[in-house]
Parts: sequence; structure tokens; C-alpha cells
Amino acid sequence: MRCALTSVVTVTAPPKAQFDVVGIGNALVDVIAHADDAFLATHELVKGSMTLVDTDRAVHLYRSVGSAVEMSGGSAANTVCGVASLGGRAAYIGKVSDDDLGGAFGHDLRAVGVHFAPGAHADGVPTGRCVIVVTPDAERTMNTYLGASSLLTPDDLDLDVVANGQVLYMEGYLYDRDDAKAAFRHAASAAHDAGRLVSLTLSDSFCVDRHRDDFRSLITDRVDLLFGNAEELTALYESDTFAEAVTEVRRDCRMAAVTMGARGSLVITPETILEVAARPVPKVVDTTGAGDLFAAGFLYGFTHGHDLEGCARLGAIAAGEVISHVGPRPLVELRTLVV
Amino acid sequence: MRCALTSVVTVTAPPKAQFDVVGIGNALVDVIAHADDAFLATHELVKGSMTLVDTDRAVHLYRSVGSAVEMSGGSAANTVCGVASLGGRAAYIGKVSDDDLGGAFGHDLRAVGVHFAPGAHADGVPTGRCVIVVTPDAERTMNTYLGASSLLTPDDLDLDVVANGQVLYMEGYLYDRDDAKAAFRHAASAAHDAGRLVSLTLSDSFCVDRHRDDFRSLITDRVDLLFGNAEELTALYESDTFAEAVTEVRRDCRMAAVTMGARGSLVITPETILEVAARPVPKVVDTTGAGDLFAAGFLYGFTHGHDLEGCARLGAIAAGEVISHVGPRPLVELRTLVV
Repeated sequence: MRCALTSVVTVTAPPKAQFDVVGIGNALVDVIAHADDAFLATHELVKGSMTLVDTDRAVHLYRSVGSAVEMSGGSAANTVCGVASLGGRAAYIGKVSDDDLGGAFGHDLRAVGVHFAPGAHADGVPTGRCVIVVTPDAERTMNTYLGASSLLTPDDLDLDVVANGQVLYMEGYLYDRDDAKAAFRHAASAAHDAGRLVSLTLSDSFCVDRHRDDFRSLITDRVDLLFGNAEELTALYESDTFAEAVTEVRRDCRMAAVTMGARGSLVITPETILEVAARPVPKVVDTTGAGDLFAAGFLYGFTHGHDLEGCARLGAIAAGEVISHVGPRPLVELRTLVV
Repeated sequence: MRCALTSVVTVTAPPKAQFDVVGIGNALVDVIAHADDAFLATHELVKGSMTLVDTDRAVHLYRSVGSAVEMSGGSAANTVCGVASLGGRAAYIGKVSDDDLGGAFGHDLRAVGVHFAPGAHADGVPTGRCVIVVTPDAERTMNTYLGASSLLTPDDLDLDVVANGQVLYMEGYLYDRDDAKAAFRHAASAAHDAGRLVSLTLSDSFCVDRHRDDFRSLITDRVDLLFGNAEELTALYESDTFAEAVTEVRRDCRMAAVTMGARGSLVITPETILEVAARPVPKVVDTTGAGDLFAAGFLYGFTHGHDLEGCARLGAIAAGEVISHVGPRPLVELRTLVV
């Protein structure tokens, strides 16, 4: 039944958004090194996972790996760079320090046209970094020293930026501290108040395990569009099968986009389930950033009037590019790959 | 005529060297970005050259380039890493600061087994960096902010390390300050006193132009083995033709190894000139490090009993690997390419 109130108050569409996507996440520089499976075994690393490490462990792992390359990373930051590379307008909120890596992180966002709203510099805590070990099978195993990135609080949010983004995109990785959880809820409210959509990526099944109840209540209360892979979704609902998790997520969310590696992706709504194939690539070199760039393609499509299948196809194109080379961000303008 | 003295003093071979090659150079982290020729024109950059820039210019150029990747570089440092990658024992002397990039620089040497003798940390001066613009034709244009690297003085030399290297390898790039010139002469004397060979790379024709007389007297007085490309050698002697420069260098040096890009290299001694072909590669991606890795292969061969042609062939193999990918250091163990 339609409420009579709507006939007396002026219902307006939200003002035109300045940004297509506003990302919030852990601002990290990736330190990428190659190693074999024996290295993972020696250092008790679980292939494909993301593990939070303290300073000592970070130093130890860094000392143990071979020559490394430093590239800006961070899951949501990779995503907003992907959106920009497709021609979208993106902004990023995350916390760095006043050091070399913090400078590089900001540069690499601005260099692709992403608006960076960094909040206050963290004093005395270095910029976060993620030691990524890439094995010959192209899998990446991540060891994250959060540093400044984890110190994000609600005070660091530029709410004008949040209110000016058509879709807010929040990274589950950040969800390990109470301040960050508060920041997520605060940002999600600000986005909804401005008539925007709120999306979240689950990021990692271990992260989901650590904060399952908080994730579930955040998703039920505030999330319109959920990203994750099959493993993360199954972990979220502690389901015995992926199919059960799909049933659960249809109850909780207006929309979920779930990646399944080489098997492609599913777009799940209460009404439908669409399956979209992955983009074949000649050689998978490094899977770092695959999920991040899938989200980039999907969000670009979503904010540019594509249907859900088209969104997932754009996701597949962007993910296909990033797994073809070392590093978590596109090496070509993604817009040139879209015809 | 043989001097009678040799019959009364005991002439001994120098003690077995701990290192095959000891490099001295500018300790730099490369900041690598891709851009087109128009970018070079806009910023008045001369393709293929190395330009020294001050802080303001470095900041300006960095702000202007797109997303970048940070990798340890520095000409002589690349060379000693190449020697280590071939299975040789190498050490490096150069100056960094106590910051992220300085840490990465040291890590990347140690990670491949190079002994790093950094001297004292530079206080308040950041680690040097080289903003490298790679154009679509794979040429690299380098803009070097020397930072801490240029503060090397004779006091920073670990003379035990120098005396323990079968060949001392000095990088002409470092030769822009009087302290560094003094350090070169000091190191060369220490090497000769220990019965070692002294080699020098000319590095850059502009650098040769700036310091031609000093280079020539250093070469005549102290250098046994000279590295350079055809352009640098021609600049050194202000010759009208490369052939004239070859004639000159035969008078000055026991040996010169001269690279000529895709045309291969020449090994020049007073008695002979050997020409060795370049190693064909499927695709030249980034020529950064080509000369450095040629020197690595040559020096590895030279310290492992190869004849001069074999030395140049090893140089061609090492250079061929490094131009096949982005970045100035080998991505595979070079020893696996040598059969």
C-alpha cells in the first residue's frame, strides 16, 4: 500500500554523483616476490590465503623472500583503479603514512585519475605492506602487515566523498578492527542517507570466519550488493554446500556477484541466477587482483547502465587482464579492451 | 728486459679472492613508468639518456608519470646481481638512507646473495631514485635524483671488500662529484695493491662529456678493463668515427668491451678485435639494464676462465634476458640459461 505521505513531500532523485565508485579499504603497497611451494611449506603459509602478520613476522618473511618488486595494491584500491581504467570516475579512502611507500600509494591512485581522500597521516606507524609470494602455478599467498592502513577510524572518512559516490565499495579485509567496523557502518549510513548504493566484498574466507556475525549483520542491515568468491560465501553462511550459501544470500541481499575462478561468475538476485563465463587468457601469470578487478568491471558496468550479465562480462574482461601479468592493477587502459 | 729484482723477492699470486666482482655505484631504486613519445617531448627529455635531476624536478616528473613500479636498480648493482644470478660471488658498495627504499635496495642485493657493504647511512637525505620512462619502442629515459647515493666518499669504502674482489667494477654514473672521483681512485689503488683488476663502465655519453678529462686520466692510470657502448666510447675520445675511438682505446687500455645494441659487441685488446653477435630475443620490452647485464655476463666469464669470446657471449645471454621484460635485473636464474 502506498503511503499517503509521498503525495505531500517532494520525492527527488539523489543529486548527480561526482563519482561512480567510492572505495574504502586497506591502503597497502604490495611487495611481490616469486617462490616455490617448498617456501610456503617452510614458512607455514597457506597457499591462496591472506594472513595478517605483525612487524616481526613481516620482517622475517621479507628477509626470506628473494628480490621483490613494490607496486601499489590494496584490494579496494585495485578496484577503484580498475574503474578509472575503464573510464569511470572513482575515489578512494584509506590511511597511509608519510613515508616512501605512502607517497607511492597516493601517486599511483592519482596517476590513474582516482581521487584520493587519505584522512590524517598515521604518525610513527609505517604505511602498510603486503608481502605476496607468487608460486609457479600463479597463485598468490599474501602476508599483510597492516601498519597505518588499519588505523582508519570514522573520523578519517570524507563523508562528502562518500555521499558523492553512486556506489560505496567496502573491502572486508579492513574489517579486522572495531574502529574500521564502526567506520564501515558510518560510511554505509552516509551513503544510504545520500540515496547511494552500498557494496561490500568479503575479501577472504579466514576474514569471514573471524568476523562472521558482524559481517552477517552488516550485510543484512546495510549492504545492497555483495561481492565474494564461492569459498567466502560458503564460509559466511557456514553452509555445507555452495548451493545452500546461494539460497541464503538471496534472502539477505538484493544482489550478489560471486566469482568462481576459471569457472566464471554468478550474479544472484532474489529473482534470478545468471552464470557468466570467465575470459580465457593465454597464460595465467599471477592471480593477485583477480577478484578486485572483477568487482571493478562489474561496478563500472553497473554505474553505466549495463544489465547484470553485461556487468559480469566486464568483470571477466578486467579480471582476465590482471591475471595475465604480475601485479594487482591493469597494465593497459581497460577501456581499450571493451568493444 | 726482465728486472733482476724479481729473482730476489718472492713473487706470489694474490690470495684467493672472496668475491669474483666487487661493484661500486649509485645505489638507486628505479621508479618505472610507461609513457609515450609525446610525454618525453612535453618534459624535454632526451630518449635513451640519463639526466641528473634535483628534488623539485624529480617530484615534478614523478607527479607527471602514470602508475609506477618500484624495483631496485643502480647500474653497478644490477651488474653484481647478474654476476650472482650466474653463480658468481659478488659484493656491492653504495650509499642508501634509512628509509623504505633504502631497505628495499639492501634486501634485493642480499636476496640474491650479494654481499652489501653500504657504508654509513646518509642522514636526512633520502635514498636515491631513478624515474625511468619506458616508451613503446622499449627505450628507457632515465631521470636520476641521486639523494644519498651521491654522498659516497672514500671513507665509505670497505677496503677489505675491495681487496677481496678479483675484479673491481666502478660505475661512471657515480663520477659526478669530487668525493666520488676520490673514492674511485682510492678503491682502484686498493684493488691494484691487492693484485686485483680494475674495471670501469662509462655509463652515459653525457656523463663522459661532463668529465672527459677526469675519465681519460682515470682510464690511463688505473683501468684495466673498460666497458661502454659505441656512443660513449666515441664521446670519450671526441672521435669523428667509432673506428677512431677504437684505435684510441687500444692505446689506453688492456681491454675494452663495447656494446652496440642489436649489433652485438666488440672485445678490443691491443692485439685483437673480436665481434660477438647479440642474443636474439622474441620481443624487446625494456632496454633498462642491457649494458649492466652485458657487463655481468662478461665479468662472470672473465672470472671463471672463459676466453674473451666466451665472456662476450655470456654478456649477450645476460643482456638478452633483461631486455625481454620490464626491470633492470634478471627475472630468472641466469645460470639456467647457460649451457
